[in-house]
Amino acid sequence: MSHSTGQFRVLLTVDCLVFGFEKNELKLLLVPNEGDGEPGKWSLIGGFLQEAESLDETAICILEKVTGLKEVYMESLKPFSNPKRGLSERTIGIAYFFLVNFNRLDHQAIKRHKAKWFLINQMPAMVADHREIVNSAIEQLRCSADRRLVLFELLQEQFTLPELLTVYESVYGKVFDVRNFNRKFLSMGFLLKQTEKSWLTSKKGAFYYKLDKELYSLSFIDYKV
Amino acid sequence: MSHSTGQFRVLLTVDCLVFGFEKNELKLLLVPNEGDGEPGKWSLIGGFLQEAESLDETAICILEKVTGLKEVYMESLKPFSNPKRGLSERTIGIAYFFLVNFNRLDHQAIKRHKAKWFLINQMPAMVADHREIVNSAIEQLRCSADRRLVLFELLQEQFTLPELLTVYESVYGKVFDVRNFNRKFLSMGFLLKQTEKSWLTSKKGAFYYKLDKELYSLSFIDYKV
Repeated sequence: MSHSTGQFRVLLTVDCLVFGFEKNELKLLLVPNEGDGEPGKWSLIGGFLQEAESLDETAICILEKVTGLKEVYMESLKPFSNPKRGLSERTIGIAYFFLVNFNRLDHQAIKRHKAKWFLINQMPAMVADHREIVNSAIEQLRCSADRRLVLFELLQEQFTLPELLTVYESVYGKVFDVRNFNRKFLSMGFLLKQTEKSWLTSKKGAFYYKLDKELYSLSFIDYKV
Repeated sequence: MSHSTGQFRVLLTVDCLVFGFEKNELKLLLVPNEGDGEPGKWSLIGGFLQEAESLDETAICILEKVTGLKEVYMESLKPFSNPKRGLSERTIGIAYFFLVNFNRLDHQAIKRHKAKWFLINQMPAMVADHREIVNSAIEQLRCSADRRLVLFELLQEQFTLPELLTVYESVYGKVFDVRNFNRKFLSMGFLLKQTEKSWLTSKKGAFYYKLDKELYSLSFIDYKV
C-alpha cells in the first residue's frame, strides 16, 4: 500500500510531566518557555530524542537532570502528532508522566532549570498543545490508578488517610465518601497503622500509616479502587 | 540541556491492530510478512506516516484500505522505540487498536491484502517486536474496558449475555462468575431485552439484547465493570 513508500522523517520530542504532592496539593512542574514566539507562556520539561537512546532513556535522562531523581514511577502517553501543532518543523511529541516523592527531589537542580510547581487546577498559559498533553496525562493517570495502586508513589513513607484521600480527590477531580474510601483501603490489608499521629489536618489528629511493601506489590496488578 | 541540540530524525510506522469477535472468539487480523529477512512470520497491518497526515489519519487510512471500515472505535498505544527493534533504519512504531463489528467488514478487501484472522490465544510467530505490541494492546484494551464500556463495539446489534461474557473473558483472559456478571450488566439499565432467543449456545436458548444507545453513551465515561 502507498503507506509503505513514504520516506518522510520527523523530529521527536520527549516531554516530561512531573507530578508531585506537597502541602496536601497535587502539583505539576513546568519551565518558562524560551524563544519560539510565545513569550510569557510555560512549557513541559523536554528535549529531542537522541540517536542512541530509546524514548524511555531520553525521558529518564531529562527527569534526572531537572529533578535529581532516577528511579521513579513513569508511563509514556500516546503520541501527539497533529501536523499543525504550532512548531516550525514537523515534530511528533511523546510525553511521559512521573510520580515523584517531594522529599527526594533535588530542589537546587529544579531552581537551576528555572522550573516551578503549579497546582493542577491552576495551570498557567502553556505553549503549543502542552495543555492538551497535561489533560491527557491526567486522564491516563486515573486509568492507571484504577488498575494499579500507583498513587502511593506520590506520598511520603508515612502518610495519613486524609492525605491519601486528598491525593485521590486531586487526581480524579471529584469528592469521595470519606468512610467508604477509608474502609476500602483499610480492608486491602497493606496499610500498617503507626503509633504516631499527624496534627496538621485536624484537631483530633490522624494516625500515620506505612505500606506493607510486600503485600502492596502483590496487590499492585489488577486492583480496582 | 543537551537534549535540545539533537537534530536527529526518524521514520515513523503506524501499525494497526484490528480486533474482531466471530463465532464466539476474539480474533486479531494479521498479514504475512514480506521481505525483511523473517520469512514465514506474520506482521501487523501497517505503513509509514505521511507528511500531510497525523498519525490518526494514517491509521484510519490503513484500516479502511484493508477492511473497508472507516468509523470504528480506535485508540493509539504508547510508542515502541527501542533502538534495537530489529529494523534496518531507526524507526519508531506507533500502534493503534480498532474494535470492529465482524458483519460490517469488507471480506474481499481483507482477502486482497492476504490478511488472516488469528485467535488471540493462538498467535503465530511475528516479526520484530510485534508480539510485544499485541500484548501491550490487550493490556490497554483491558484498561479502557474498565473505565468505558468499549467492548460492546465488538458485538453485533443484537447479542446475548453469554456472548457478552465471552467477549469480556477473552479480553481479560480470565473467567468471571456468570451470575454476578449478568446481574452487573442488567442493573446498568441500558440492555434492552428482545423477544427472540438465540439457540446457538445452549438448549434453553439465550435472549437477545440490544443497547439503549442514549443511556449507553451517557454511561460511557467512568464506569467500572
